[in-house]
Amino acid sequence: MSAIPAYADVLAAAERIAPYVHRTPVFTSGFLDSLVGANVFLKAENFQKVGAFKARGAINAVLLLTEAEAARGVATQSSGNHGQAVAYACAIRGIQATIIMPEHAPRIKVDAVRGYGAEIIFCPQSEREQTLADFVDVSGSVVVHPFDDVRVIAGQGTATLELIEQVQDLDVVITPIGGGGLLTGATIVAAHHGIVAHGAEPETVDDAFRSLRDGIRYPATGVPSVGDGLLTRIGEIPYEVLSDAGTTILTVSDDEMLDAMRMLAERTKLVVEPSAATGPAAVVRYAELFSDMRVGVVLSGGNVALELFAPSASAASDA
Amino acid sequence: MSAIPAYADVLAAAERIAPYVHRTPVFTSGFLDSLVGANVFLKAENFQKVGAFKARGAINAVLLLTEAEAARGVATQSSGNHGQAVAYACAIRGIQATIIMPEHAPRIKVDAVRGYGAEIIFCPQSEREQTLADFVDVSGSVVVHPFDDVRVIAGQGTATLELIEQVQDLDVVITPIGGGGLLTGATIVAAHHGIVAHGAEPETVDDAFRSLRDGIRYPATGVPSVGDGLLTRIGEIPYEVLSDAGTTILTVSDDEMLDAMRMLAERTKLVVEPSAATGPAAVVRYAELFSDMRVGVVLSGGNVALELFAPSASAASDA
Repeated sequence: MSAIPAYADVLAAAERIAPYVHRTPVFTSGFLDSLVGANVFLKAENFQKVGAFKARGAINAVLLLTEAEAARGVATQSSGNHGQAVAYACAIRGIQATIIMPEHAPRIKVDAVRGYGAEIIFCPQSEREQTLADFVDVSGSVVVHPFDDVRVIAGQGTATLELIEQVQDLDVVITPIGGGGLLTGATIVAAHHGIVAHGAEPETVDDAFRSLRDGIRYPATGVPSVGDGLLTRIGEIPYEVLSDAGTTILTVSDDEMLDAMRMLAERTKLVVEPSAATGPAAVVRYAELFSDMRVGVVLSGGNVALELFAPSASAASDA
Repeated sequence: MSAIPAYADVLAAAERIAPYVHRTPVFTSGFLDSLVGANVFLKAENFQKVGAFKARGAINAVLLLTEAEAARGVATQSSGNHGQAVAYACAIRGIQATIIMPEHAPRIKVDAVRGYGAEIIFCPQSEREQTLADFVDVSGSVVVHPFDDVRVIAGQGTATLELIEQVQDLDVVITPIGGGGLLTGATIVAAHHGIVAHGAEPETVDDAFRSLRDGIRYPATGVPSVGDGLLTRIGEIPYEVLSDAGTTILTVSDDEMLDAMRMLAERTKLVVEPSAATGPAAVVRYAELFSDMRVGVVLSGGNVALELFAPSASAASDA
């Protein structure tokens, strides 16, 4: 596999991970379509294993480890979906996983990681990278990065590959962007099929938008967002691929994400996390870009605190 | 069609309504399975047209009207899913629908009914039956009852028919019971396949439980429940069919329903209404009845105020 993932890597990943992931369904909403003036197809990765697309990339990466690497075990740091995904992937292969998590990680995520048989090392939020580095020095574990890894990106691309198989004649595909693994995979697949891929990003953490606009890979803004899966700086490989592709990033506000998240619950009966609502929020906000088009949107995951569905949570998110 | 619907009526209904309803997917949850010690299969009628199984029965009934009946238009009274279902069914057939709704019906339900082109007559909650009778006297409209109608019951039975086609070797099927249309349809289908059907009912509105236990068709309790689709008295046809079948009704508390509703959102990413959570709540509460069985549960609908997903809503429901 090269330093930049190719379409063939995505095809190989799809075959490799098929026994362990769901082929998630695609939903439509007459309400959303009339709001946008387009045909919108929602790829429901909230129904994916571990509740998010992250299972795809982690499984592909773990299955691609050599026997010697696998014997050393896998480590990563994540309080979110990637940690669960790596734990699940290692359980599939029957190897040791160690997840570095912040001390105040939600109980449900801690339990999920433990449920897959992974070890957890807790540390202060600010010391996660160092704790991971120290652990790897001592243990010799292999690190599976959440997005700056060609195996992971190829795995994430399989979500868009499926969507294109499930829905004919798409004009555009939209995915959230945090580190950029999902969007980079989507871009590789979409380009092969002559389809445009856009990213959707919270405007408070718009480093990817500004980086691709200005040709400089900016650091993360460090500002909070309800899109807690998207706070990360855009990765090096994603930056390179998306720069070459001339990818457009559409930014949305936290309130637009929460509104879209609640609209999906009310109208399509789908529970998605705020990060996953960036795509639907973007098609609503930038509807004029998609007039009469067939628009695929990847709903990246469904791991969300239910409190956010109460209307009063809007105000809380501004605090 | 006889006074008691037969299995053949359900088969005919399935073919009749197929172009207008979704073949809804079936979900499983490893978490729920290990909680219950059984294999539980969730039939997701929250993804059905109008957001609930009610579309099935209403469409079957409206399509079965003679041309002369259809020309008179259809009327019903409902603040909930049946009203939307009748409005949708009449839109399909291109005939007039009139829905009697309480003055304080939620805006979203009023808009949905209007969106299908139906007329609405508002009246005080306590005068709904009389208002419907008066309207029918004047207009000559045909009434489609929400459950005491063999055409409606046959239509509702198609949900269980699909579930049995989708999942092999079920031991038992569980559906909510309010008026009893869904459970009666399930019972007719299940009996044909040698499967047991149980009802699940909120314990504050347990008239069906007591009626079938005592052999007396009791009136509705008149007590509130978060299962607002299930407040109705058991219908005459359902009472007859379910009495003959010796059906068991499992009762659950409002808190158990809310807990199950939130568990489904967190673990399966499905938005269901509290009424639809009676089945999952029952398999959890009465887990010992289902040990190692293959249990089908019909999630009846997903039309719910999102406020109920906030944990504080538990207390509010007790008020």
